[in-house]
Amino acid sequence: MRLAVGAAFRAMSAVQGRPRGLVYEKHGEPAQVLQLKDINLPEMGASGVHVRMLAAPVNPSDINMIQGSYAVLPDLPAVGGNEGVGLVVQIGSNVTSLKPGDLVIPADAGLGTWQTEAVFGEEKLLKMPPDIPLMCAATLSVNPCTAFRMLSDFKTLKPGDSVIQNAANSGVGQAVIQIAAAKGLKTINVVRDRPNLQELVDRLKSLGADHVLTEEALRKPEVKDLFQEIPKPLLALNGVGGKSATEMLRLLQHKGTMVTYGGMSKQPVTVPVSALIFKDVKLCGFWMTQWKRDNAQNKEELNGMITDLCTLIRKGQLTAPACQEVPLVDYQLALKASMAPYVSAKQILLM
Amino acid sequence: MRLAVGAAFRAMSAVQGRPRGLVYEKHGEPAQVLQLKDINLPEMGASGVHVRMLAAPVNPSDINMIQGSYAVLPDLPAVGGNEGVGLVVQIGSNVTSLKPGDLVIPADAGLGTWQTEAVFGEEKLLKMPPDIPLMCAATLSVNPCTAFRMLSDFKTLKPGDSVIQNAANSGVGQAVIQIAAAKGLKTINVVRDRPNLQELVDRLKSLGADHVLTEEALRKPEVKDLFQEIPKPLLALNGVGGKSATEMLRLLQHKGTMVTYGGMSKQPVTVPVSALIFKDVKLCGFWMTQWKRDNAQNKEELNGMITDLCTLIRKGQLTAPACQEVPLVDYQLALKASMAPYVSAKQILLM
Repeated sequence: MRLAVGAAFRAMSAVQGRPRGLVYEKHGEPAQVLQLKDINLPEMGASGVHVRMLAAPVNPSDINMIQGSYAVLPDLPAVGGNEGVGLVVQIGSNVTSLKPGDLVIPADAGLGTWQTEAVFGEEKLLKMPPDIPLMCAATLSVNPCTAFRMLSDFKTLKPGDSVIQNAANSGVGQAVIQIAAAKGLKTINVVRDRPNLQELVDRLKSLGADHVLTEEALRKPEVKDLFQEIPKPLLALNGVGGKSATEMLRLLQHKGTMVTYGGMSKQPVTVPVSALIFKDVKLCGFWMTQWKRDNAQNKEELNGMITDLCTLIRKGQLTAPACQEVPLVDYQLALKASMAPYVSAKQILLM
Repeated sequence: MRLAVGAAFRAMSAVQGRPRGLVYEKHGEPAQVLQLKDINLPEMGASGVHVRMLAAPVNPSDINMIQGSYAVLPDLPAVGGNEGVGLVVQIGSNVTSLKPGDLVIPADAGLGTWQTEAVFGEEKLLKMPPDIPLMCAATLSVNPCTAFRMLSDFKTLKPGDSVIQNAANSGVGQAVIQIAAAKGLKTINVVRDRPNLQELVDRLKSLGADHVLTEEALRKPEVKDLFQEIPKPLLALNGVGGKSATEMLRLLQHKGTMVTYGGMSKQPVTVPVSALIFKDVKLCGFWMTQWKRDNAQNKEELNGMITDLCTLIRKGQLTAPACQEVPLVDYQLALKASMAPYVSAKQILLM
C-alpha cells in the first residue's frame, strides 16, 4: 500500500463524525480492556499538531503496555499503540518544522497511535519524506530503528564480519537481516522450528539472510561448520533470552558483545562465568524508548538515522515486514492474530 | 615481615644445595600431584635473570591451574604458583632494567613461582621498590592489580559514589575495600555468614569497608535502607556468581556495570532481561592475566599501576591480606588451609 500526499488527502475525506480510538481504562488482557470509542481531542494550542492517523501496527510492546507489564506505563485512561504514521491536518501558530500535508511518525513512545485523529506536540513527531511507502513509514520508528542502532552502537563492524541473532523472524529480526546485508555483514539467523520451516527460511534468505537455523540446530556440534565459511560473530542480538541466548554466547567471538532487546521466552539470560572472565564477552541491553529520550534534546542523530533508513527503503534494501492490514473496527482480529504463535505477518490497523 | 635488601641478601645465605620446586607432572588434586623435588634451572642466556624466590602465595587460580580447570594451562611437567616475590641474583649480559639485589615480581601468569630459584626472561619481571614489605610484594601482582583495574577501567567514579562487591573477604575483596576507601568511594561488602561473623565485619571495617552484610541480609527488603545514606552502586564486582551476583544486579544503579572476575559458587550469572533492557545494566568480565598480555608490549600502564599501588602501601592505605607464612617443605599444610572454607588468611610459602 503506497499513498502519495494527494491520495492521502483524499483518504481523509472518508473521515466522518468524531475522532475514535482504542481506549483502555485499566490494565489487563487487551481483548478485554480495549474499547473502540469516541474521544475528545485536546486543544491544539500554539505548539500542537493535529494529525489524521493513517495506519498503526500492533507490536508486542503495545500488548505488554496494555497488560501493565511494560517498563513505562501511561496515565489511564489511555489510547493504545506506540507506532504508526499520520498526516498533518493543521498546525499551531508556533509550529515551524511541519506543515499540513506532511507525513509524520512518532518521535517518542507512549503517544497512543490507535486513534483516527490526534493532537500531538510538534517535538513528539518526525517528518517522513512523502515517497516512503505507508507500511514502511508505519513500522519504521521502533523495529528498524532498534536494528539500526544495535548494528551501529555496540561494535565496530566491517564488511565480512558476522552477526548472530535469535527471533530472526521478528520485526527487529527482519530489519537486522536487511540492514546487515546492506552493510555487507554476514548474518546467522536463529528461528524456532515450526510447520513450513523451509518457507520461512526461504523468505528470510530472500531478505538477505546468509544462514538460517533452528534453536535445535544451534545446539548441535555441527553448527561449528558454519565458521569454516564465515568468522565467528562479534555481535549477538538477543530478543529471546533463556537457552537461546546462552547458545548464542557460546558461539560469540572472543571479546564479542551480546545486546538484549527482548525476552520472548520470558526466561532470564544465563551467562557462564568463564565466558565473562576468559572469553571477555560483554552483555548489555538496548531499548529504543530510552535511546529516544536520551537523544530528545538534539534530534540530529534521530533525523540522521531516519534519513539513512529512508535511503535503504528507496534502494529496496529495507522493506516493511509482511503486513496484514486490518480496519480499525476489526481490532479484535488484529489483537488475536498478533498474539498467536508463529504468525509472521505484522497486524496493521488502518484508521 | 619486612626485609630490606641487605637482610634479603643475608637470607640468601640460607640457600643450600640444589634448587627445589613444587612440580606436577599431571593435572589433579594438588595434594596428590604436587611433589617437592630438585629442579634443573635452564641456562640464563643473555636476556635471562637468575632469581632467588623469597615468598609466594597460594591463590585459588593456582589450585585451578594444577587441577587442570583453568583457562590457561602450562606445558607439563610444570612448577606451581603464579605470584610471588624474588631477589635478583645474577643477570644476562643484555639485561638493562634489573640488577642483582633488585626485588622482582612476575609481570605475567604461569611463571611457576613455587621454587627456591628460577631463571626468567627479563620481560617477565617487574622491579619492586626495596621499601615495600615482602608480604605486600608477594601478593601484589594479582589481587591488588585486579582490584585497581576494576575500580579504574569500567566506570568513571567520583568520591562519594558507591561500589558493591561480594567475596569481600577474598584477596581481591580486601584490596577493593582499601583502594576504594583511598579514592573516597563507599563500599558495600557482601560476605558469607559464618561463625565469628562480627570479627570479620570488624576486620573489613578496619580496612575501610563502609558496609558489610551477609548474602542473606542482601536479599532482605531492608537492604534498601542503605540507600538513604549512600547512592546506589554504579559498579558491582562479582567474584561469586549465582544468586549472589543476581542480588547485586538488583541493587545496581540505572546504567550500572557488573564486572565478574571469579565464580567461587561455581554457578553462572543469571540476568533478568528487564535489567538489561530497561535498567541498561552492563555485564563484563576481568582477567588480570589477559590484561597483562594485552599490555605486554607497552609496560607503561603496568608500571604506572605498580607505582600507584606502592604509593598506597607506603601511606598505609593498602596492606597485605592476613597471611599465614608456611615453610616450603610444609606445602601440604598450606594447600590444605588454602582450600578449607572460611579460612581468611592467605597461605604464603616461604622459600
